[in-house]
Amino acid sequence: MITKYEQYVAEMQKIADVNYSIGLLQWDKEVKMPTKGAAIRSQQISTLSGIVHELSTSDALGDLLETLFENKDSLSEKQAKNVVLSREKFLKKKKYTIEFVKHRSRVVANAYHQWIAARKANDYGVFKEALREIVKISREETKILGYEGHPYNALVDQYEKGMKVNVLDELFKDVRQQLVDFGTKVRECEQVDNSFLHKFYEKDKQWKFGLELLKEIGYDFEAGRQDISTHPFSINFNSNDVRVTTRIDENDFANMTWSTIHEGGHALYEQGLPLESYGLPLGTNISLGIHESQSRLWENNVGRSLSFWKPRYENVQNIFPEALKEVDLDAFYKGMNRVEANLIRTESDELNYHFHVLIRYEIEKGLIEGSLEVDDLDKVWNQKYKEYMGVDVPDDNQGILQDIHWSHGSLGYFPTYSLGSFYAAQFYQQAEKEIENLKESIESGDTQPLLDWLRDKVHRHGRFYTAEELCIKITGEPLNFKYFMNYAKAKYGDIYGL
Amino acid sequence: MITKYEQYVAEMQKIADVNYSIGLLQWDKEVKMPTKGAAIRSQQISTLSGIVHELSTSDALGDLLETLFENKDSLSEKQAKNVVLSREKFLKKKKYTIEFVKHRSRVVANAYHQWIAARKANDYGVFKEALREIVKISREETKILGYEGHPYNALVDQYEKGMKVNVLDELFKDVRQQLVDFGTKVRECEQVDNSFLHKFYEKDKQWKFGLELLKEIGYDFEAGRQDISTHPFSINFNSNDVRVTTRIDENDFANMTWSTIHEGGHALYEQGLPLESYGLPLGTNISLGIHESQSRLWENNVGRSLSFWKPRYENVQNIFPEALKEVDLDAFYKGMNRVEANLIRTESDELNYHFHVLIRYEIEKGLIEGSLEVDDLDKVWNQKYKEYMGVDVPDDNQGILQDIHWSHGSLGYFPTYSLGSFYAAQFYQQAEKEIENLKESIESGDTQPLLDWLRDKVHRHGRFYTAEELCIKITGEPLNFKYFMNYAKAKYGDIYGL
Repeated sequence: MITKYEQYVAEMQKIADVNYSIGLLQWDKEVKMPTKGAAIRSQQISTLSGIVHELSTSDALGDLLETLFENKDSLSEKQAKNVVLSREKFLKKKKYTIEFVKHRSRVVANAYHQWIAARKANDYGVFKEALREIVKISREETKILGYEGHPYNALVDQYEKGMKVNVLDELFKDVRQQLVDFGTKVRECEQVDNSFLHKFYEKDKQWKFGLELLKEIGYDFEAGRQDISTHPFSINFNSNDVRVTTRIDENDFANMTWSTIHEGGHALYEQGLPLESYGLPLGTNISLGIHESQSRLWENNVGRSLSFWKPRYENVQNIFPEALKEVDLDAFYKGMNRVEANLIRTESDELNYHFHVLIRYEIEKGLIEGSLEVDDLDKVWNQKYKEYMGVDVPDDNQGILQDIHWSHGSLGYFPTYSLGSFYAAQFYQQAEKEIENLKESIESGDTQPLLDWLRDKVHRHGRFYTAEELCIKITGEPLNFKYFMNYAKAKYGDIYGL
Repeated sequence: MITKYEQYVAEMQKIADVNYSIGLLQWDKEVKMPTKGAAIRSQQISTLSGIVHELSTSDALGDLLETLFENKDSLSEKQAKNVVLSREKFLKKKKYTIEFVKHRSRVVANAYHQWIAARKANDYGVFKEALREIVKISREETKILGYEGHPYNALVDQYEKGMKVNVLDELFKDVRQQLVDFGTKVRECEQVDNSFLHKFYEKDKQWKFGLELLKEIGYDFEAGRQDISTHPFSINFNSNDVRVTTRIDENDFANMTWSTIHEGGHALYEQGLPLESYGLPLGTNISLGIHESQSRLWENNVGRSLSFWKPRYENVQNIFPEALKEVDLDAFYKGMNRVEANLIRTESDELNYHFHVLIRYEIEKGLIEGSLEVDDLDKVWNQKYKEYMGVDVPDDNQGILQDIHWSHGSLGYFPTYSLGSFYAAQFYQQAEKEIENLKESIESGDTQPLLDWLRDKVHRHGRFYTAEELCIKITGEPLNFKYFMNYAKAKYGDIYGL
C-alpha cells in the first residue's frame, strides 16, 4: 500500500499547495495589494478555488481513498488516521451537488451585499430577506449533510467536529445561569479605572512593543511576520510560514496589545503543527474551538494575568512614560481586566463576551429548528441583550447587524468562540498542575515551559484527536464549564473585591 | 463563433489567474516571506506551474484554438490576432516532449547549483561540465523548435519573436566598430567626477525620494507598490497591480535612483497594457526587447538627461545637502553619465553596457553553431574584454561567472538588453519629433506628454504588433543602430568635449 499512500500524500499536498496559494492571495489582498488590484484578484482567488474543488472531489482521489481505506490495516496508525479523516472529508464534499454549491454562492454573495447595504442604512429590515434565504439554505444544508438529534448539529460539526447541541445546551445553560449571575454581581461592584489605556501611545513604539511581545511568547519570526491590517488576523501557508497582523490605535493601547497576543496564540499553534504532515489532516489544526483555545489561553489566561506583566511592566512604563508613569502594576492589571457590558462582541471583556455568543447560539438554534423567525429577530436580539447584559440596544448596527458571519452563511460558527475560552481555562488549569513552578516561571518572564507543554499536549498532534478526545487526553475529562467559572470567579472576584 | 471565443477567453484567463498567482508567490518569496518558508514555497510554485502546463497544453484548448483559427474570418481583427498568437504559442509548447522538459529541468537545476559552487570557488572549471550540458540541450532545443538560417534564431525567438541572427549580426557589427571606436575615444578624454554619488545618502530619505520619482514619472500607486529586495525587479499580476522593488545603498545614490526609474519604466508599460485583454496576447507585452526599451528610455534617455534634472535638482540638493550642496547641476549631470570600462555588466554605464552584451552574443552564437567550445571559454571571454573594453579580467567571478542566465539555460536572452536601448533611442528620437515642446515640458518637470505618447504608440496595443512591426509603425523603419549612435555621440560628445 505504500505506493498508493505516497500517491495520496502527493495529491493532498498538491491540493494544499493550491489552497495555501489562495491563502497568500488573500493575505496580500488584506495587507499589501494596491486598491485597483481588487477586481482581478477576486477572479484569481475564484479560479484557484475552482481548481481546489476539482482536485479535492476528483474520482481519482475518491478511488485512491477507498482503496487505502479498505487496506488501512496495512498502514501505520498515523497513516490510517490521515486516510480516514481525508475520506470522511471527501465523502462530505461529495454530498453537495454542483447546483446546491452554485445556488449557495449566489445566496451568500447577495446576503453579503445586503448586509453591507443594511449596515449603511443601519436597518435590519434591509437584511431580512437575505437572512431568510441564508436560513433556508442552511436548513437544506443540514439535510444534505445529515445529522442525529438536532439539525443544528450538522452546522456546528462543520467548525467543531463532533460538537452537539445537547453539549452546547449544557454549557450555555451554565453561562446563562452562573455567568449571568456572576456578571450581575460584578456590575454592582465599584468599577475599576482603565482610562489610562486611552491616553496617547505612539504608533511606532506600539509597533515595536508588539513585535517584542510576540518574540517573548515564542513566536518564531523566521517562520512568520507581522503586518498591519484593518482587522487583525493570523494566516498560515505551512507551519514554517505563519503570519499575523495587528492594528494600532494611538489612543487605545489595549487594542494592539491583546489582539497581538491573541493572534500570536493562534500562530503558535500553527507554527507547532508538524511540517512533515504538510497537506495532510495530521498537519492541520483540530477545530475552530481548539484554535481559539490557543489564542484565548495566551490572550487571557496568560496575557491578562498579573504574573505575565510583573516582569515586564517596568519596561512598559519606560516605553510609554507619559501614559503610564502614574499607573502602578496593580492598577494596570485591573484596568486591562475591566468588566463592562458592551454592545459590541469584538470589543467585549472576557466575561461579557460569552453573553454575546450565548445570544447568537440561542438565535441560530432557534432559526434552524424553526422556533424563531427572521421577522422581528431584531426585537428578540434586543430583548436578550437586555436580559443577559442589562443593556439597551440603540440601533441595529450596534445590535443584530454587527457581525459579518451570517452574511457569509456561517451559521454554527459562533459557539466555537466560547468553546475556545472554556477549553483554554480547562487546559490552563491542567498546565498549572503539571508544569512545575509555572507561575514563578511566568513571573520571571519565561513562558517557554508553557509553550513546550502546549506543543507537547496540543500542537504536535495535528488532527490526530478530535477536540473531545484531546480534552480528555489532556485533562482527564470532557469539556467542563466549571473550569472557566472557577477561573472567572477567582480572577474577577479578586479584582472586584467579591 | 462568439461562444467558442468566450470559452477561449475564459480558458486563457484561467491560465493567467494561475500564472499570476505564481507571480505573487514569487514576489512574496523575494520581498516578504520569512526565511524558513522557502522549502514549501518552492513546492507550491512548482505545483502551480504544473497546473499551468496542464491547462496550457490541454487537448481541449488545442481543439478550441483550431476551431477558432479555422473560423478566424468571423472574428474581429483583435480577436483573430489573439487566436493566432495563442495558437502559435500552444503549438510551440506542444513541440516539447515530457521527457525533454523533465531532462531540461534536471540539467538546469544542476547547472544552477554548479554555478553557485563555481561562484563560491571563483573557478569556471567547476561550472564547465554543467555549461556543456546546457549548450547541448539548447542545441537540441533549436532542433525541436525548428529554425530558418542560423540555429541561434530559434533561441532568440523565445525572447524576441522574429529577431534573427542576420539582423543581430548587423547591429552588433556596428557596436563592435562604431561604438568600440567611440568608446575608445571617450576613454582618452579627461574623466568626469562622480565621487559625490558615493557620499552618504540616508536610507529613509532615499526611499522617500524614490517614491517621489516614481510618482513624478506617472507610476500609479493605486495600481502598484514599491518594496525593497536584494535585486530590483518589476512584476505584474494584472495591469492594475504592477509592483516594483528597489535596493538602497547609503553610499551609492546612483544605485537606488536609476534602478528605480528603470523598474518604473518597465512598470509604466505594464500599467499601460489594456486590462480588458487580461490573460490574452493583446493584454501582454510584446517582447523582452520592447520591455527593455521602455525601462531604458525612462532610465537613460529621460532619467539621465539634463532636462529631467533641471526642474528637480534644487530639491535633490535640499534633501541631501551634505552630499550635494557643493555639486552644481552640470557636475551632477556629468557624474551620473560617467563612462568607465567596468567588468560587471549590471554596474555598467550606458555605452560600455553594449560591449558586455556583444561579448555574450558572440559567445552564445559560437557555442550554438559549434565554432566555440565550452573548454577554454574563460580565455575567450577575457580576450574579448581586453579587445572591446581594454580591461583585464582578474578572476572568473568578475568574468565569465558573473551572470546567472546561462545557469538558467537562458541562451538567446542577452541580446534583448541591447535591443532595448536601441529601440529606446529610435523611439525617443521619434517622440522628440512628434511631441511639441517635449524638451520644454520635461524641463518644466512634466513627463506626462511623453507617457501619453508611449501609451498611445506602444502600451495600449499589447502584443498586436511584433517588435519589428511596432518599430516600423512608430518610426517608419525597422530597428536601426544609427539612432542609438547619434544619441550616444551627441550626449557623450558633449559631456566629454569630443
